[in-house]
Amino acid sequence: MFDPLLIPELREMLLENDIPAMHEFCNVFHAGVIAENLESLSVADCWQVLSAAEWSRRAEVFKYFSHSRQMELVETLDQSKLSALLEAMAADDRVALVKDLEPALVDLVLPLMAQVERDEIRKLLSYPPQSAGSIMTTEYASLRKDLTAGAALAQLRLQAPQREMIYYIYVIDESRHLLGFLTLRRLIMAKPERPISEIMDEDVISVRVDEDQEVAARKLARYNFLAMPVVDDQNRLAGIVTHDDVVDILQEEATEDAHKMGGVLPLTEQYLESSFVSLWRKRAMWLSVLFLAEVFTFSALAHFEDEIQKVVALSLFVPLCISTGGNSGSQAATLITRALALGQIQLRDWLLVIWHEFGMGIALGVTLGLIAFVRVFFTPAEVLGVSEPLRLALVIAQSVAAICLWGTLVGATLPLVFKRLGIDPGIASSPFVATFVDVTGILIYFSIARVQLNFG
Amino acid sequence: MFDPLLIPELREMLLENDIPAMHEFCNVFHAGVIAENLESLSVADCWQVLSAAEWSRRAEVFKYFSHSRQMELVETLDQSKLSALLEAMAADDRVALVKDLEPALVDLVLPLMAQVERDEIRKLLSYPPQSAGSIMTTEYASLRKDLTAGAALAQLRLQAPQREMIYYIYVIDESRHLLGFLTLRRLIMAKPERPISEIMDEDVISVRVDEDQEVAARKLARYNFLAMPVVDDQNRLAGIVTHDDVVDILQEEATEDAHKMGGVLPLTEQYLESSFVSLWRKRAMWLSVLFLAEVFTFSALAHFEDEIQKVVALSLFVPLCISTGGNSGSQAATLITRALALGQIQLRDWLLVIWHEFGMGIALGVTLGLIAFVRVFFTPAEVLGVSEPLRLALVIAQSVAAICLWGTLVGATLPLVFKRLGIDPGIASSPFVATFVDVTGILIYFSIARVQLNFG
Repeated sequence: MFDPLLIPELREMLLENDIPAMHEFCNVFHAGVIAENLESLSVADCWQVLSAAEWSRRAEVFKYFSHSRQMELVETLDQSKLSALLEAMAADDRVALVKDLEPALVDLVLPLMAQVERDEIRKLLSYPPQSAGSIMTTEYASLRKDLTAGAALAQLRLQAPQREMIYYIYVIDESRHLLGFLTLRRLIMAKPERPISEIMDEDVISVRVDEDQEVAARKLARYNFLAMPVVDDQNRLAGIVTHDDVVDILQEEATEDAHKMGGVLPLTEQYLESSFVSLWRKRAMWLSVLFLAEVFTFSALAHFEDEIQKVVALSLFVPLCISTGGNSGSQAATLITRALALGQIQLRDWLLVIWHEFGMGIALGVTLGLIAFVRVFFTPAEVLGVSEPLRLALVIAQSVAAICLWGTLVGATLPLVFKRLGIDPGIASSPFVATFVDVTGILIYFSIARVQLNFG
Repeated sequence: MFDPLLIPELREMLLENDIPAMHEFCNVFHAGVIAENLESLSVADCWQVLSAAEWSRRAEVFKYFSHSRQMELVETLDQSKLSALLEAMAADDRVALVKDLEPALVDLVLPLMAQVERDEIRKLLSYPPQSAGSIMTTEYASLRKDLTAGAALAQLRLQAPQREMIYYIYVIDESRHLLGFLTLRRLIMAKPERPISEIMDEDVISVRVDEDQEVAARKLARYNFLAMPVVDDQNRLAGIVTHDDVVDILQEEATEDAHKMGGVLPLTEQYLESSFVSLWRKRAMWLSVLFLAEVFTFSALAHFEDEIQKVVALSLFVPLCISTGGNSGSQAATLITRALALGQIQLRDWLLVIWHEFGMGIALGVTLGLIAFVRVFFTPAEVLGVSEPLRLALVIAQSVAAICLWGTLVGATLPLVFKRLGIDPGIASSPFVATFVDVTGILIYFSIARVQLNFG
């Protein structure tokens, strides 16, 4: 919704310091649209436009800026303005921002804020990272169960301005124990004189403060909730996780999975914002492990040095043969890992999966083996440097087919084995499978060659 | 929320055909929880429990069953029951189910349904697959702009039972042109006598019926909406896309990306449900392309046959050297592809990215080069079969370092180039990068060897 036509207009408003126009701009559009259009302006211009709006509106827009722009914007604020911004933000967004600020700056700003907000920040900061508690907001709507629907609606109208989510209303007792919940839909549909204890749902699906944020996100998505209550170990309501956090959390997860598949320890920071040394450590670690494993290809080849000495042409096909295993293995591993992650297959389906991949491995092996045969058979004999090209072509074709089947089976099996052992199946990444199959592929290739070619 | 304690209870209810207990079970729990617990029962038992509930409740529970269970459940229904189920379902879920049914069965069932639902199904089926129109629901709340807030709330109470989403209300004119929208929050907060034209937002962010479902999902997530209007090319309201579709769509996307990275053409079906031949075609296609590309490793090696003949030990390190390039390349490609997908980097950052990866490639290359040097230098000379192990160790170490740098640069650059060319950067998958770097890696390795070793 970035609108290039708005930029010249904005520049003119800034030039003329046309405050009424800027005020209108800040209030007519969706906060996200405003942020997108302000993103290309300088930080100073950005604040100038925003200062035409109330602090509450500025905080709403702020939330939609990119992380790096947020940091730039905060840097130029003095302490009193920063505390005003923080006070105006939603509880969960506020804590997310505080986590990213310099601790020294936080110590300066916190005393300027109201006691309520200050205590809340301290409390939310105390939950472990990645826990449901760390992402929840405390701005939920709650009511006592002895109210009638009419009285409840009247109370809700009073609470609404300070609440992030008013479509789900939680019913609690005097010690904040969670008794039930009801939706605003049900509340406005109910007869005004009906007690809410009769219309509320008592079977409330909740998540504990110390549970993983991903558990919370998956539950929320699974049951199509707009929000889900977060409770402590005594079932007292501590906060709610809202629908807009789900996508962020699941996207974080998908990135972690992608990084694992590509052979990087998952990065928690954004790519351009992570430090060189920490990125190097995460990348070098995996590459070194794979490298050390790959050294076994040397040992395997050294074992067949005599054969290579006699038929040098054999060595020319080594990369072709082993890469076949790596590619077919990555493919199978990706399919199975993803199907496991989405719950399309379960561990108990293992026999079916392996049977399925066995057939597929044969079909793929025959396909690639035929291509290999044709390619080798029609290579000029002087390039191959062998007297019997047909024989060599047969060896290569059989090796390619066998290694392709082997790669497929290994790629399909490893994620299942890891899952069974309680290890994340995503570890069976493309590079991991490829390295494993490289070494074993060499053994398969030269074993076939040794049996079928006359060395002597 | 699968509760193993519920299963024996359910079995007892079934044994005694205790309809009141089954009725309670179907109404006390969340529909999703009911589905999870019924999933382990036989199809007949499942229907027996559900038949204690109203059709509308059965339809709600049905939505939460796994796809394969849904198909099993539908198979046992006669036509009149199937049409009752379809009528009770939400418009978008209904169309999704109809798409999966045999066309012959659909033709039998449709005439049994009410005209309104029948027309709606036909209309929704007419939108192209993967479009916003194909996933939208027509059960939205809409009002005319001349109403007061009080009258609007009264009308909304009448509409609510048939509407999937009543927290966002769309304001339309007599030809369904979208004039504005307002939230239920704002509506209940407004003074009853205020006209809704004064409290509605006129800047409505919408999506066109023919736009990609992913565009709709991303916008919805980006602006934290609960729903987004879907309009035709004349800005007439056709339906809405709701928040619960977003996660499904984004998950579908993540799977497609993972499949591309693993070298499979994206599967649209679930793993165990796709046909063998279509799966074989998708997998064989990629593997064959990679295989044909990998044949160039043979050509490259054949070019250095003389060198190999003289120093056979050189050929023993080929897999080690080229796999280094493949692994470092996959790693860089994964990081950059993912960062692009999340918008953490933009195309205009290309110089920064390449500069960053250049430094990283050197750091990683030095790390792996050192490991390689140590490993080769301490290998017994008779295994290597060369007179000067130090010299060979230096060649291997330099080649590993150079190829690692090269792989990193290629892996980082290809996704950017693809993006620039308007091709999906996900194509620069691990197997693709690995194959490309395999061939070029051989050239780097033997060029270094040729310069540094005395052949002749």
